[in-house]
Amino acid sequence: MSTHSRHSHSNLDEDPAFALHRGGKLHVQSSVEVNDHEDLALAYTPGVARVCSAIADSPGLVDTYTWKSQVVAVVTDGSAVLGLGDIGPEASLPVMEGKSLLFKQFGGVDSVPIALSCDGVDDIVETVVRMSPSFGGINLEDISAPRCFEIEKRLRERLDIPVFHDDQHGTAIVALAALRNAARVTGRELGDLRAVVSGAGASGLAVTRMLINGGVGDIAVADSKGLIYADREGLNPAKAEIAAISNKAGLQGSIETALAGADVFIGLSAGEVPESVVATMAPNAIICAMANPNPEVHPDVANRYAAVVATGRSDFPNQINNVLAFPGVFRGALDARATDITENMKLAAADALADLVGDDLAPDYIIPSSFDGRVVPAVSAAVAEQARKDGVARA
Amino acid sequence: MSTHSRHSHSNLDEDPAFALHRGGKLHVQSSVEVNDHEDLALAYTPGVARVCSAIADSPGLVDTYTWKSQVVAVVTDGSAVLGLGDIGPEASLPVMEGKSLLFKQFGGVDSVPIALSCDGVDDIVETVVRMSPSFGGINLEDISAPRCFEIEKRLRERLDIPVFHDDQHGTAIVALAALRNAARVTGRELGDLRAVVSGAGASGLAVTRMLINGGVGDIAVADSKGLIYADREGLNPAKAEIAAISNKAGLQGSIETALAGADVFIGLSAGEVPESVVATMAPNAIICAMANPNPEVHPDVANRYAAVVATGRSDFPNQINNVLAFPGVFRGALDARATDITENMKLAAADALADLVGDDLAPDYIIPSSFDGRVVPAVSAAVAEQARKDGVARA
Repeated sequence: MSTHSRHSHSNLDEDPAFALHRGGKLHVQSSVEVNDHEDLALAYTPGVARVCSAIADSPGLVDTYTWKSQVVAVVTDGSAVLGLGDIGPEASLPVMEGKSLLFKQFGGVDSVPIALSCDGVDDIVETVVRMSPSFGGINLEDISAPRCFEIEKRLRERLDIPVFHDDQHGTAIVALAALRNAARVTGRELGDLRAVVSGAGASGLAVTRMLINGGVGDIAVADSKGLIYADREGLNPAKAEIAAISNKAGLQGSIETALAGADVFIGLSAGEVPESVVATMAPNAIICAMANPNPEVHPDVANRYAAVVATGRSDFPNQINNVLAFPGVFRGALDARATDITENMKLAAADALADLVGDDLAPDYIIPSSFDGRVVPAVSAAVAEQARKDGVARA
Repeated sequence: MSTHSRHSHSNLDEDPAFALHRGGKLHVQSSVEVNDHEDLALAYTPGVARVCSAIADSPGLVDTYTWKSQVVAVVTDGSAVLGLGDIGPEASLPVMEGKSLLFKQFGGVDSVPIALSCDGVDDIVETVVRMSPSFGGINLEDISAPRCFEIEKRLRERLDIPVFHDDQHGTAIVALAALRNAARVTGRELGDLRAVVSGAGASGLAVTRMLINGGVGDIAVADSKGLIYADREGLNPAKAEIAAISNKAGLQGSIETALAGADVFIGLSAGEVPESVVATMAPNAIICAMANPNPEVHPDVANRYAAVVATGRSDFPNQINNVLAFPGVFRGALDARATDITENMKLAAADALADLVGDDLAPDYIIPSSFDGRVVPAVSAAVAEQARKDGVARA
């Protein structure tokens, strides 16, 4: 095979990440043993026919007598995989399997990676709608912006199961939780904060929206062309929408303009912010530099100027990691048999996450650890409760 | 919920089939433990990015470093579920989960139920093609005829992974194996047999084709309108194709006409054959009455006239059950990383299955038990070997 000429398998496996991935990371397990004809007659024909008929008569029974209401599709088209870009569906599979693994181990949520070969928004939407009878929820993953916004919007409209683009909302939930506690530990109100978000992709725009909904005073968002403001030419609809609710000060120009005197930096891009610019931020600044593996501002630099520093990395304090959100969000949504994941449910998740820090709050502890066993129970309970309050719960 | 008014859950669970199905029959399991940040850094970011990049560079590596080449999609639209008909995707899920359970327990094959809400052939084909990057094989299931023929044909043309409609080929493989041994135990050659197939749905037509390819002398097929012959009006393309290769005698009229003097009856319909008609068959007849739960000829009746009697039921000898075929066929195809399941691979599966009976051959033992541990190893080895001979193996 041609692959062998480019990558020797045995060489690759010297990297422990490859060794661990050999054969994949997932299996399907049956919860029923079939050891004899009697077992077979219950789990398969003829017994299964009675279960099928009951569901045909009373569709709601599908949630009770199949795994549908317990299994999430992790859907991508491979168009924006990690920081690697559009590497296609096959090459995205290790990430999707990893997501399924985390869903299971952190949230007890069964999920299946579905990497799609699709040409555009319509294809992805139709395909997911067609396969939705098999799933209790849809986790969209690593789909490029701005397509991801339209896809999520249309799927939420058409499906009566939760649809959640984790790159947007998972990141946003954890960022809001972190920022709430960062404000608290520095003695400020969210409403008094002026923040700058670097990056106007899926996560940058979603974080901005959620921080505004969560009460942050003002936010300026920068993309590769500079700050986004209401009349900037050539904005796509998602950016135009953000322009309308952010940057109240109407700042124009480069991100440096906005960072001067800003209280908060949220990095969700690949760019680097020079130390001289970091130095212009307000006293007691909060820096969340979330790019992986290279934060926009290295924590060693950030700590010289900021009161609170968070990153996406596990080897520094205050790791802002989606795994703090998505397992509990879906666990809660599935437990409540929610038909949607509302904005309130996301805010409730962020509050639950922030509250876990409690009296242990400190500049280097604004967010719980990914391996804190309290996280998923707290987040899922808050999400399920809010689903019931919002009238989207079926259980 | 309205479902409660029609089916009390506690009442339903008095049926052990319902009790067993509560919560579904499947789970996803991860084969990698993530207990700390180091594990996370290998199974997910940043380690996973190296695996994704390697696959993007060398697409063949997806088979080695993801579960793709080990996982089969069990795809249906719920249009022909068991004998229940078009009950839709949700109500078909218990069967699809059951199939996944059998794939796993009998063949060690991971599979995922994908019940589609689709309008027609084009939709199903496009949807399966789009999700095919995630799977190593496609098992089509319970899709109504004649749509299933077109769907399978087009998917085989477009995909480089095995596509197998089990209702057709699984049944055909086991029926051919049974008939080979039935001929042997009654001292006849396949080429001397004149057979009648009742039912021209997916399995009836596939069994007919395979028996002809396997060497059976002549076969007359009957649908609800009677015998199928070359010039019969209104035949759909699949039946017209069968008409061209079967019924050499050109019999017309009802199935009774063909059964008079016939050596073999293969029942793949819901109809009943009266005892008086069974009585007209040739001496030493072979009756395979495979309708479930009510065979077209009850074994007690069939035994009065036939030398060999088989059914689809486990409570009579000679159970012709697809589970003898599909786990081994896919296990072998996946092991060989086959790009297709050829006619020769199916014939090899039938031969391997028939050969297992060996010297124990008897009128009440023409086919191994579903729980015979030799079945999957023998079938999978034969299928993988034939894939290599046919030039469709990649491993």
